[in-house]
Amino acid sequence: MFMNSRALRIEWGDCDPAGIVFYPRYFAMFDACTTALFERALGMKKGEFLKAYDAVGYAMVDTRARFRSPTRFGDDVVIETTLTELKPSSFSVQHRIMKDNVVAVEAFETRVWVGRDPGDPDNFKAKPFPSELIERLKRE
Amino acid sequence: MFMNSRALRIEWGDCDPAGIVFYPRYFAMFDACTTALFERALGMKKGEFLKAYDAVGYAMVDTRARFRSPTRFGDDVVIETTLTELKPSSFSVQHRIMKDNVVAVEAFETRVWVGRDPGDPDNFKAKPFPSELIERLKRE
Amino acid sequence: MFMNSRALRIEWGDCDPAGIVFYPRYFAMFDACTTALFERALGMKKGEFLKAYDAVGYAMVDTRARFRSPTRFGDDVVIETTLTELKPSSFSVQHRIMKDNVVAVEAFETRVWVGRDPGDPDNFKAKPFPSELIERLKRE
Amino acid sequence: MFMNSRALRIEWGDCDPAGIVFYPRYFAMFDACTTALFERALGMKKGEFLKAYDAVGYAMVDTRARFRSPTRFGDDVVIETTLTELKPSSFSVQHRIMKDNVVAVEAFETRVWVGRDPGDPDNFKAKPFPSELIERLKRE
Repeated sequence: MFMNSRALRIEWGDCDPAGIVFYPRYFAMFDACTTALFERALGMKKGEFLKAYDAVGYAMVDTRARFRSPTRFGDDVVIETTLTELKPSSFSVQHRIMKDNVVAVEAFETRVWVGRDPGDPDNFKAKPFPSELIERLKRE
Repeated sequence: MFMNSRALRIEWGDCDPAGIVFYPRYFAMFDACTTALFERALGMKKGEFLKAYDAVGYAMVDTRARFRSPTRFGDDVVIETTLTELKPSSFSVQHRIMKDNVVAVEAFETRVWVGRDPGDPDNFKAKPFPSELIERLKRE
Repeated sequence: MFMNSRALRIEWGDCDPAGIVFYPRYFAMFDACTTALFERALGMKKGEFLKAYDAVGYAMVDTRARFRSPTRFGDDVVIETTLTELKPSSFSVQHRIMKDNVVAVEAFETRVWVGRDPGDPDNFKAKPFPSELIERLKRE
Repeated sequence: MFMNSRALRIEWGDCDPAGIVFYPRYFAMFDACTTALFERALGMKKGEFLKAYDAVGYAMVDTRARFRSPTRFGDDVVIETTLTELKPSSFSVQHRIMKDNVVAVEAFETRVWVGRDPGDPDNFKAKPFPSELIERLKRE
């Protein structure tokens, strides 16, 4: 299914006193990668497609990451993001951080497509993906 | 086994444009909670016990979080952290974020106790927990 | 004028590979301190007073920080936040991070009270402070 | 003097509930830009040149930022970083965040080149720039 990859350099500010990435920072990178996947599938920026489809976002429901080897500031890595499951109102994604062609971190996430709850605008509610979005995500 | 809990308020800067916690921030909170658990068990601050036991830290190996309901800036939550498994050089912890006595987020993590690799000081290597640390963590 | 202070412990995740606070983290602490100042003055949480006064927030216009001595993970510090100027739609605040009764960091900030721009709801516009808010901030 | 520019996209996770960049995130971007400036001047990564010159880093002493207009997730910006002053053991840099060719944020910083304090390895001490580094930074 749909896949996207992103090259980035680990920054000093991503790292902790042990000199390696402070692992919560990986999740911020993954969040940007899931967005990049959707943006490429739709040919729109996140702000544009949220507005176009009257959505608030894709709320995280479940995520897991396995850390096989550390990365350090200055490391150039590639994050490969693959859509692994697409349901009517949720999806799953796998992220793999590659460093020197070896998997340093492997992560999985499941998210739900949400909009404002019509009965309570302060809250969110799962809603079905627009059919156009499903078609585009299935295309590759 | 050993348990610790921490009250904290969700800050504006923890939240994203949807007004809810940006989920990587939860992992930063969990990291501080695991530290608080060790600090209470040992009666020493992290900097002190790392030095006392010649360790670099407790490297994250595997973590998972399930997000049941969102939290927002201004929410007062309690994070309950429980040691769930203690092996010779690794341990597992469960974190539960309670909001109004309901579990908002549930997380699991497995970490390894590491020191500098004697053969390569730029790298880390798993090492056995000091026996004193094991005794104190088993005490409760 | 109005003053508030907050005790906090520097966390591992606030620090960089040199073992000291990664300075952008100080600004996140200051942001929470300015909010705490307003919350104490108004007896309401930020979410409550933004709603009550139909505001979006207090946008940062200008900030400066001087770093006199580093702080490290495990350090217990106190941040003293003082309102130094109050104008019809803007205010200035000073933050001082005290470590062992010595000023480690000193910062200044000027912010503007903003709401949605009535003519363009995607943008913000400075608006006058509610008189009640001015009275409460001048009280001490 | 020496100058470098960097293009980047504002991410969802950089933004706050008002939908604009949470300003502490700008400082993390600036830190990476100062590093990029040094890396380009020296043709080495930060980890390499800190090791080559036996330094711990360039500690922030004083920084100021003025926020002229907000940036939002999805905005593509360019950060222009210019060395404005070079002294024997300190330097100043200016950062300008350009959005649609307009300055959105302007910042200044002064930092000191530091190494381990020979008399107290837990602390840092200002040390003179290596002459090679000065020459390379003055070259452009």
